[in-house]
Amino acid sequence: MSPIKKIALLTSGGDAPGMNAAIRAAVRGALYHKLEVMGIIRGYQGLIEDDIEPMDSKSVSNIIQRGGTILKSARSKEFLTPEGRVLAYQNLKKHGIDALVVIGGDGTFTGASIFSSEHNVPVIGIPGTIDNDLYGTDYTIGYDTALNTVIDAVDKIRDTASAHSRLFFIEVMGRDAGFLALRSAIASGAEAVLIPEVNTNYQKLSEFLSNSYKKQKSSSIVIVAEGDKVGGGALRTAEKVREDHPDYDVRVTILGHIQRGGSPTAYDRVTASRLGVAAITGLLENKRNVMVGLVNDEIVYVPFEDAIKNKKPIKQELFSLIDILSI
Amino acid sequence: MSPIKKIALLTSGGDAPGMNAAIRAAVRGALYHKLEVMGIIRGYQGLIEDDIEPMDSKSVSNIIQRGGTILKSARSKEFLTPEGRVLAYQNLKKHGIDALVVIGGDGTFTGASIFSSEHNVPVIGIPGTIDNDLYGTDYTIGYDTALNTVIDAVDKIRDTASAHSRLFFIEVMGRDAGFLALRSAIASGAEAVLIPEVNTNYQKLSEFLSNSYKKQKSSSIVIVAEGDKVGGGALRTAEKVREDHPDYDVRVTILGHIQRGGSPTAYDRVTASRLGVAAITGLLENKRNVMVGLVNDEIVYVPFEDAIKNKKPIKQELFSLIDILSI
Amino acid sequence: MSPIKKIALLTSGGDAPGMNAAIRAAVRGALYHKLEVMGIIRGYQGLIEDDIEPMDSKSVSNIIQRGGTILKSARSKEFLTPEGRVLAYQNLKKHGIDALVVIGGDGTFTGASIFSSEHNVPVIGIPGTIDNDLYGTDYTIGYDTALNTVIDAVDKIRDTASAHSRLFFIEVMGRDAGFLALRSAIASGAEAVLIPEVNTNYQKLSEFLSNSYKKQKSSSIVIVAEGDKVGGGALRTAEKVREDHPDYDVRVTILGHIQRGGSPTAYDRVTASRLGVAAITGLLENKRNVMVGLVNDEIVYVPFEDAIKNKKPIKQELFSLIDILSI
Amino acid sequence: MSPIKKIALLTSGGDAPGMNAAIRAAVRGALYHKLEVMGIIRGYQGLIEDDIEPMDSKSVSNIIQRGGTILKSARSKEFLTPEGRVLAYQNLKKHGIDALVVIGGDGTFTGASIFSSEHNVPVIGIPGTIDNDLYGTDYTIGYDTALNTVIDAVDKIRDTASAHSRLFFIEVMGRDAGFLALRSAIASGAEAVLIPEVNTNYQKLSEFLSNSYKKQKSSSIVIVAEGDKVGGGALRTAEKVREDHPDYDVRVTILGHIQRGGSPTAYDRVTASRLGVAAITGLLENKRNVMVGLVNDEIVYVPFEDAIKNKKPIKQELFSLIDILSI
Repeated sequence: MSPIKKIALLTSGGDAPGMNAAIRAAVRGALYHKLEVMGIIRGYQGLIEDDIEPMDSKSVSNIIQRGGTILKSARSKEFLTPEGRVLAYQNLKKHGIDALVVIGGDGTFTGASIFSSEHNVPVIGIPGTIDNDLYGTDYTIGYDTALNTVIDAVDKIRDTASAHSRLFFIEVMGRDAGFLALRSAIASGAEAVLIPEVNTNYQKLSEFLSNSYKKQKSSSIVIVAEGDKVGGGALRTAEKVREDHPDYDVRVTILGHIQRGGSPTAYDRVTASRLGVAAITGLLENKRNVMVGLVNDEIVYVPFEDAIKNKKPIKQELFSLIDILSI
Repeated sequence: MSPIKKIALLTSGGDAPGMNAAIRAAVRGALYHKLEVMGIIRGYQGLIEDDIEPMDSKSVSNIIQRGGTILKSARSKEFLTPEGRVLAYQNLKKHGIDALVVIGGDGTFTGASIFSSEHNVPVIGIPGTIDNDLYGTDYTIGYDTALNTVIDAVDKIRDTASAHSRLFFIEVMGRDAGFLALRSAIASGAEAVLIPEVNTNYQKLSEFLSNSYKKQKSSSIVIVAEGDKVGGGALRTAEKVREDHPDYDVRVTILGHIQRGGSPTAYDRVTASRLGVAAITGLLENKRNVMVGLVNDEIVYVPFEDAIKNKKPIKQELFSLIDILSI
Repeated sequence: MSPIKKIALLTSGGDAPGMNAAIRAAVRGALYHKLEVMGIIRGYQGLIEDDIEPMDSKSVSNIIQRGGTILKSARSKEFLTPEGRVLAYQNLKKHGIDALVVIGGDGTFTGASIFSSEHNVPVIGIPGTIDNDLYGTDYTIGYDTALNTVIDAVDKIRDTASAHSRLFFIEVMGRDAGFLALRSAIASGAEAVLIPEVNTNYQKLSEFLSNSYKKQKSSSIVIVAEGDKVGGGALRTAEKVREDHPDYDVRVTILGHIQRGGSPTAYDRVTASRLGVAAITGLLENKRNVMVGLVNDEIVYVPFEDAIKNKKPIKQELFSLIDILSI
Repeated sequence: MSPIKKIALLTSGGDAPGMNAAIRAAVRGALYHKLEVMGIIRGYQGLIEDDIEPMDSKSVSNIIQRGGTILKSARSKEFLTPEGRVLAYQNLKKHGIDALVVIGGDGTFTGASIFSSEHNVPVIGIPGTIDNDLYGTDYTIGYDTALNTVIDAVDKIRDTASAHSRLFFIEVMGRDAGFLALRSAIASGAEAVLIPEVNTNYQKLSEFLSNSYKKQKSSSIVIVAEGDKVGGGALRTAEKVREDHPDYDVRVTILGHIQRGGSPTAYDRVTASRLGVAAITGLLENKRNVMVGLVNDEIVYVPFEDAIKNKKPIKQELFSLIDILSI
């Protein structure tokens, strides 16, 4: 295996706060080890279209605090085809790029895995997604920021909910995973949470609301993950509750894309910095087709297939907290 | 006219950040002038139900920075009837309350105006609404905070919009008034704005989008007021655009109730403090059935009927800015 | 007078949040009127050293929300000399620049005024300073953001002050002007304020503290402007109070440079956008040697000498509020 | 050992954001297990002075998001004496309190440990300190919020530092521990960090500055922990640098008490909620004289003496990041 002298970076899939901090760390980590660095614009699509630029230390100055991704992201249908991946490979060769660092979620890593096995290109992944749903790492970049964005929004809604004694259903992102919903429910003092992992009993929510009404609780917040199975998100659950509990003044807010943006938190910036540097170290130590992650606050390298195929479980201790704290 | 010795305060209608700062100022202003103060819980409904408590300086300690209203708000159907207002009046008498300070929007002032003329109770109003749609005052309490909440949200959405080169329609509050939409569009660098006051040409937006596409602008934000007439809010406008401009990756976010909450900004706190104190001074100077307001940064007293009946115009200079700045 | 076809922009003196929004507005305003635009890096010093670059619409994309100034600022000793100004003029000529837009405070405008009269160059100024101490405009760009930064800091300090029943002296910027101190004191619910404009009686503060102690007020915040005359800032005042009121647990915080940074508020972004565009319109309408300002929410043009020589008075109504609200 | 039926809570020492979330969780956790709960005002001093109140679920409504501590804190000289502790014990008996939950740092736990052994009172501790310097737990409540407060301040200072190409020394809290300084330096993209744990070579900083000057880096931020040994904090280090590197425009900001306040972050709220509930569970499982902590994201119970006597090491991996990322 010839030594790696030149690498390229891309971000792909849904963007997440802290991706810029990871880009900065990977670029500077590479420069520190005397590698050349290229940036690929708009993910795999940009690789196919040869939208590739050299990067130096100044390219990543003053970006650690910025949301979004300076490399932009995109979903590429072409990269799903063998022909597309051949074009991508040819562009890598053309620029003399020896290895690829990809920042994204499981879609990104699935693509990377196939590409790598087809064209024998060393690839390393950095987990960047607000959903925190990747197996093999305790945290993904963007999750902590999204949590704080959600609780900031819920704090605001709590102000007006209290003023009017209302019941709010607040929908947060998470099609298949309730991590964001669960931790934000605890952190915002929500009275209940509905997540995809738990076959939540609508009956249970309904009883809670009946009891709560008797206790004259002044307002209630229910956090609902996008992918909750009760009734398909906040809107339908709210409708059902309106029918069954006509005494409640029910409102719905769907937080939407604000959850993807914003300046990353300290935790996300530190994690992104560690993972970005560790991605480079990993490549230099001949790690291939792995995602770099954090387990028990230590750097780990996890094969892509493990990260993609396994499902990260939610912590039962956290789920139980909701019942205790809404007493 | 007998001198005023005891007053009562209430907040009514949609709550707005800074209402607590106004309550604090009115309470302390009253105490400064040796008046007694009572707080009415849940607006006119609480007045009818005799939900009234004495307040002192400590009652309003450490609330200047809090969103919502410690006096809670409510909409009262009973107060719309003469019988309800008789009950309300009887409770005022029972507690020896000589005058009323009401904090809210035009619904609140309409009720106050009728009540005052029926029962000859001195009432003074403080404008508290995020819509800034009251005639006779340049600013209403809560407007500046809501503006900042909106631009904070749009800044976050811009991060992800840029990362993916998307077109976002963002709906902000304002059923009849576009003040919030217009200023937040300028402040967030939006490419276009749709407000109820302007019979906005959908054609114009459509042309803008066509040009913009040609110029390969990386992302676009359109701010839509709830009450916009183009197509009834962000959702329907987005649908139309999706049909006419299939090249765009269109997304919609409805900001919703986060706009009503949050810690008030410096401007709202200062305005609320000034108006709260001026409401008391006004009562002591025999001002009745007026709203206290700020015009050209000076305290003014405006008859309720003027504040309610007239429509505050939007500033054409501001509206034109959008075209210039999205060049 | 030949028509203006090409202008240049610079920022000078202490930077203020919103300067980037003003740069964006001036650049796009100029492009809207078909002018060419150059950006001068590092203020007058960059003009002397020919650090000048062309700007287009994309140069100012996505900067409205950023603190600092993309054109950077500097203090130039050379520009204080006639020789320096000759060099500056030669560079203007060299680039074919017909007029200058300068963003800054009174030092910036003094320099502009001399330069303009010596070399007959049309200059227009945009007021950017967190101190709000320019005569002829109600607000300067950056003031509202700094106010919000200060109250956010004071809110945090209030948390810990209350927990420990402490007396905090908090020093805010303002060497000659107490605008920032006064409004932030009202907005943060401070118990007292010391500003340069008022020959504040130390005796009065001392009596307030004695009374407050008797009333067992749980904590107190005193805002002190940098340039206060009582005892020269927060540190010395605190020392005096420690001697005279040994019962108090006294702490000091000097907020410092955080007041100059941060993403600008909605108000500052809108004002900067208006003034930036109006600067260009003013130039095209043959306004020279004036500062563009906002008086009663309308655009005005004020001769530099008026803006510099006159002292903007503080509002007595605001100053009196502190006594009423700390009752 | 008789079963625990009634507990009391206190906060002591320096306050930290998230203490209220911990109080809420401990109170509700206790109620969930059918215990009675009392709140002690002003820490050990309040216990001695019998400043004790009953608490129910409503006592802790709507406080999860608030900085400070609703139970207030204090340092008690009396509790350092056996006589003081006898008084404290008598008050516990008087109220029929069977066990104590104390929230604070090592001083708080030292007091608790002595008190418990003298009077055989079950005590459990919850780690609340922004310094994160307690052995036996990965995180202490308040640390994450303080980190975010610091990086928010440094982001603002970076704006103005860049505008003027300045070198800033920013002092953060931490008399004996550099955790806050180290992580905030990474997260804010600081060029260097000085912490007590590392016998930092002034020579190294000096060389860095010389190199950096040659590379014309536009601005530099150095984070200094309060207790750094190089020269005793930011002020003295800055002075030394001013002498040795006269080309730099050096500024200093001491962040001070803003680091103790503010609404807690999601991470601190979740941790506080978990630890608060686990403190109660621990008591019911006969854990005594232990601190509840989080190790590898799992609840642990650590004897007070271990938590107090051992020194938590800093992570070398994190320290090395600074050099790599400031390349």
